[in-house]
Amino acid sequence: MNGLTHLDDQGQARMVDIGGKQATKRQAVASGRIRMNPQALAAIRDGDAPKGDVLAAARIAGIMAAKKTGDLIPLCHPLALDAVTLDFAFEDGALRVTATASLTGKTGVEMEAMTATSIALLTIYDMTKALDKGMIVDEIRLLSKSGGKSGDWTAATA
Amino acid sequence: MNGLTHLDDQGQARMVDIGGKQATKRQAVASGRIRMNPQALAAIRDGDAPKGDVLAAARIAGIMAAKKTGDLIPLCHPLALDAVTLDFAFEDGALRVTATASLTGKTGVEMEAMTATSIALLTIYDMTKALDKGMIVDEIRLLSKSGGKSGDWTAATA
Amino acid sequence: MNGLTHLDDQGQARMVDIGGKQATKRQAVASGRIRMNPQALAAIRDGDAPKGDVLAAARIAGIMAAKKTGDLIPLCHPLALDAVTLDFAFEDGALRVTATASLTGKTGVEMEAMTATSIALLTIYDMTKALDKGMIVDEIRLLSKSGGKSGDWTAATA
Amino acid sequence: MNGLTHLDDQGQARMVDIGGKQATKRQAVASGRIRMNPQALAAIRDGDAPKGDVLAAARIAGIMAAKKTGDLIPLCHPLALDAVTLDFAFEDGALRVTATASLTGKTGVEMEAMTATSIALLTIYDMTKALDKGMIVDEIRLLSKSGGKSGDWTAATA
Amino acid sequence: MNGLTHLDDQGQARMVDIGGKQATKRQAVASGRIRMNPQALAAIRDGDAPKGDVLAAARIAGIMAAKKTGDLIPLCHPLALDAVTLDFAFEDGALRVTATASLTGKTGVEMEAMTATSIALLTIYDMTKALDKGMIVDEIRLLSKSGGKSGDWTAATA
Amino acid sequence: MNGLTHLDDQGQARMVDIGGKQATKRQAVASGRIRMNPQALAAIRDGDAPKGDVLAAARIAGIMAAKKTGDLIPLCHPLALDAVTLDFAFEDGALRVTATASLTGKTGVEMEAMTATSIALLTIYDMTKALDKGMIVDEIRLLSKSGGKSGDWTAATA
Repeated sequence: MNGLTHLDDQGQARMVDIGGKQATKRQAVASGRIRMNPQALAAIRDGDAPKGDVLAAARIAGIMAAKKTGDLIPLCHPLALDAVTLDFAFEDGALRVTATASLTGKTGVEMEAMTATSIALLTIYDMTKALDKGMIVDEIRLLSKSGGKSGDWTAATA
Repeated sequence: MNGLTHLDDQGQARMVDIGGKQATKRQAVASGRIRMNPQALAAIRDGDAPKGDVLAAARIAGIMAAKKTGDLIPLCHPLALDAVTLDFAFEDGALRVTATASLTGKTGVEMEAMTATSIALLTIYDMTKALDKGMIVDEIRLLSKSGGKSGDWTAATA
Repeated sequence: MNGLTHLDDQGQARMVDIGGKQATKRQAVASGRIRMNPQALAAIRDGDAPKGDVLAAARIAGIMAAKKTGDLIPLCHPLALDAVTLDFAFEDGALRVTATASLTGKTGVEMEAMTATSIALLTIYDMTKALDKGMIVDEIRLLSKSGGKSGDWTAATA
Repeated sequence: MNGLTHLDDQGQARMVDIGGKQATKRQAVASGRIRMNPQALAAIRDGDAPKGDVLAAARIAGIMAAKKTGDLIPLCHPLALDAVTLDFAFEDGALRVTATASLTGKTGVEMEAMTATSIALLTIYDMTKALDKGMIVDEIRLLSKSGGKSGDWTAATA
Repeated sequence: MNGLTHLDDQGQARMVDIGGKQATKRQAVASGRIRMNPQALAAIRDGDAPKGDVLAAARIAGIMAAKKTGDLIPLCHPLALDAVTLDFAFEDGALRVTATASLTGKTGVEMEAMTATSIALLTIYDMTKALDKGMIVDEIRLLSKSGGKSGDWTAATA
Repeated sequence: MNGLTHLDDQGQARMVDIGGKQATKRQAVASGRIRMNPQALAAIRDGDAPKGDVLAAARIAGIMAAKKTGDLIPLCHPLALDAVTLDFAFEDGALRVTATASLTGKTGVEMEAMTATSIALLTIYDMTKALDKGMIVDEIRLLSKSGGKSGDWTAATA
């Protein structure tokens, strides 16, 4: 037993069989941030329309990516999401993205929240890279999950 | 002028017009890592088949994601990639992914390298999250780019 | 309160949370038409094989587009459709498309019927534009919907 | 000869062979509108953030749909677009969408402009249908095209 | 009555309405093989890493294709798969792929198992065609299905 | 050297770099068939509308699948196809599909022709499986390819 649920006894990739699991209400929250120079951050934060549109584009990209998770991550199940939301927060030298996904189903939505976060961050990168090619995406992690047999979980330092 | 090339004078999102640009040989290298506990890292590194399959799945996921970049990042152009490769390296408490993308075309492949890196990291997360829910993806950044009118660029500390 | 269910209190886009809604039988019917010159219309209507194939292609395109609705319309939920059908009718100087979509689920299928109609019309445009570049697509609307908490609805003049 | 370039002599669907055509600079402009009641129109136009976000979402949806045209319209060639832009204009009782697509290639981008227009309009419909289920999408048409062997073309009444 | 459930009385394509069917546990197993010359077969079988990676890539491609079945086969319903697994077996002069798909739902997963098998075989073809362009894919068939109103079925000679 | 061009020296999957290759006119022809019982074959062949629609759907599915090849086969390059055509022929106890793909580009279109053939065959299977669950897809192979540095090739017995 290798402890990796996506691999069978011979170590071969497989979709975990969720046929016997109960459909319950599940939610996951993930977060990450993109660090950038003051000029890039100001262009997003201080501009009127630009700010609206950069974040609006990142938000739409994140929501649409959450729906594509099963198409991107090889062993993820295709899921019928109940809801996805993205929030943005300006930090010192960085812009933070937090994504919340939920469904009533047989498996969790951690990967949907992680994927929404990652693609929203990459969209921000794409739309500001003319101002700062050295931006760094980091701290992408699961903050919490609820529902399902394994129960609730919250990140240690979240 | 707001300096954000994806926004026009009214701050509205647009695909930058690359119609007048020259098709040249372009390459981009991006990298990122996923930090995890020793148990999870060992399950990937020390297992025989499991290790092969986790990295193989992440590699395939990253290559396929590079081809989907224009479908994920709203303002990216659809590109005819010449090549994509992914490399993995075990670090202290982390697994590093490096992706290289290249094409002969009118715009750069930074986003393709960044997307391949991000989706490969998320695939590793998905396949090992049973062992460590607290894994953190970080240091996703562009390492270098070459080709195009703006010339070559290398990250400061890479 | 702005009355736009896809926007939260700050006007930010979100997927409406359908987690608390009941799964009921729902159906939606949409329709639209494409106006074209007599030559183009006759090429579709009077030809033997061509007529069959233009409408067959439009029908397949519409059905496949209905399944892609969640991938095209940013805030639509991905849905497990029970059925989609498309019907065509020749009118005076126009070809009409009517699409019916149904599912047993927590949200309606109006957008699936509207998307199937629109893409079927665009497919007809694409396949006959060599005969008439000035074709006009119009009257795309919801004709009726049934099921769900908001109850049945029928367009005023349908 | 049936005059339908997507059908061969037996009336069977085919992708037109563009192998012998020259790659030239091509552009297409399409437009359409969505008619709605004053309440819905005001919610988009007068709101501060809501207005920004509805149009921003429609803009992103239209741009992304243009890139998916070859995946939606059965006989369209997959194209490497140079640029796509969407513009919105408030009219009396309606909101107008105009999309411009361009590429340097062997076939035209009419369908990309038409698809961007249609999906942007459907996105507006989706985001305001809580206020007016009876909205009507109409006047979707090609306004002009330039480039290619068949030369420039402008709609009669545009 | 023509006996073809995907065609209505006028012979027009439609998605069969599954709205009135019961959600039951369903499974389907499909298989197929690719015949190749000894050099190509040995390169897959005897190589250390290459063997791992060719089969790993084919496995991932097959699993991802199963999830795309509704996007590829025009009249298939989009399905929420519970599980997909792929197995490989070396035969005399051939490599066999067997795919098993399951879900709890209102329609069967035969096409998911057939599609996973086919795309896995094409991936093997793609990755070994440099060694043998004359490879032949054959014997793709359904081996068994269970669940649903039509009951269990096993191929005659399987 | 393992002779498998998709694997590097360590046997790791990669997209072959086509950056240094010439764009030339290339074509590939693939074929395959589906064997079925007389009842199923007659339902396709003798029906009037049904026959048209089954083959029309399979033709559209095959053409659309050719355009998705790079999305399905992990290491295939995304290609800008010039043309795709599908032909059907009734044989004794079987229906044959032949697909021809062409482009002007840096790599061949064998996989596009093979994928179009396979998905067209699966579509026929899906639309007739109510009449014969035991249908067998076989003889999927490349018949010929032309263009490119490796030159022309024709299958031994084609």
